[in-house]
Amino acid sequence: MDMRWKKISDAVVRRLPLYLRVLDDLARNKDAKLISSHELGDRAGVGPALVRKDLAWFGEFGKQGVGYEIEYLRLELRKILNLEGVINVALVGVGSLGAALTRFHIRKFDEDDSFNLKICALFDEDPEKHGQVHDGVTVHSSADMAEVVRAQNIEMAIITVPAGDAQDVAQRLVDAGIRAILNFAPTKITVPDGVQLATADLSLELQRLAYYLQDE
Amino acid sequence: MDMRWKKISDAVVRRLPLYLRVLDDLARNKDAKLISSHELGDRAGVGPALVRKDLAWFGEFGKQGVGYEIEYLRLELRKILNLEGVINVALVGVGSLGAALTRFHIRKFDEDDSFNLKICALFDEDPEKHGQVHDGVTVHSSADMAEVVRAQNIEMAIITVPAGDAQDVAQRLVDAGIRAILNFAPTKITVPDGVQLATADLSLELQRLAYYLQDE
Repeated sequence: MDMRWKKISDAVVRRLPLYLRVLDDLARNKDAKLISSHELGDRAGVGPALVRKDLAWFGEFGKQGVGYEIEYLRLELRKILNLEGVINVALVGVGSLGAALTRFHIRKFDEDDSFNLKICALFDEDPEKHGQVHDGVTVHSSADMAEVVRAQNIEMAIITVPAGDAQDVAQRLVDAGIRAILNFAPTKITVPDGVQLATADLSLELQRLAYYLQDE
Repeated sequence: MDMRWKKISDAVVRRLPLYLRVLDDLARNKDAKLISSHELGDRAGVGPALVRKDLAWFGEFGKQGVGYEIEYLRLELRKILNLEGVINVALVGVGSLGAALTRFHIRKFDEDDSFNLKICALFDEDPEKHGQVHDGVTVHSSADMAEVVRAQNIEMAIITVPAGDAQDVAQRLVDAGIRAILNFAPTKITVPDGVQLATADLSLELQRLAYYLQDE
């Protein structure tokens, strides 16, 4: 990572995938070569000044009065976001959600050239599941986590265990060398500095929606 | 909905499920009857002053110097969040993710007394899927959406179609009377005022994590 990027805030980093998605769509349709910061902002749901400011952190990608070259900016954003090589991913907790996400991700990896996250190991505490193969991926004992993570060069993990087990699992993943975790367990977990955490907390979103369904 | 709640910001509403989760955990363990705003805030990841302010919007639940009665506040929050009766949910797009989420939600509804969202209809454009039954739930043609939504009193929908179809599907759901949508399609969709939208955009979160995995 470029040293200058160190000071870039997470709010900026969170918007980069939005821009990339717009550029991916445009590149697929091949209907234009250039895009203005106004249009890119409109499609991404971000103001044009913020688009220009966000991208300026990483280089001079646009020309005043002309806009951005779609294919060039798209490839640069893919580099910036570390989407060029395959990233190996482990999933912990092979229940109904874990098995479902495995299937979904394996298919996405096979079908979508721009998706570079590959689930290559599953972990579960239940001995009856050890050795099972889901969509080509083997279930290991959580006791072998450090060894499997090292052997398969795994960098990222998805947690789909029950809430009560999530913090323990996160700690074991960190101990095994994992530096980025996506947590689906419906609970707050903490990780040390230097480890990135993202949450996909569906039940919180659903409860928020329920609130708004009340009769007025 | 109480008229006074109209002016309550979404930021407040988003924190209520976090408080409820803490209270659910404590109620399950039955190890305490009271909780201070400090401890509730600590466990929810929110400052104590904000906890008090958020809850004060809805009534006087705590006593100064004593704290909140856990079971009482828990039940009040469930009422406030509209979690007392069953909410019927439709899912549109029965691909690998849709089928997986259906299985996950049906099991959660069966096993977890506090989960009140019930997937009771599936929709797909593919005629070969019409009439299929997934975990007890039938797949209907999207052409029958308005009729099925009315007949089954469906209030909420989950979208798991490809990105290119998501906006059309959202509009059809709104036309059919749906007022709350959880969107899993990796694209930005817009809905009219009065319809609530939540997004579960896993690929954005994963791309953000990938950024941070770059070598330093």
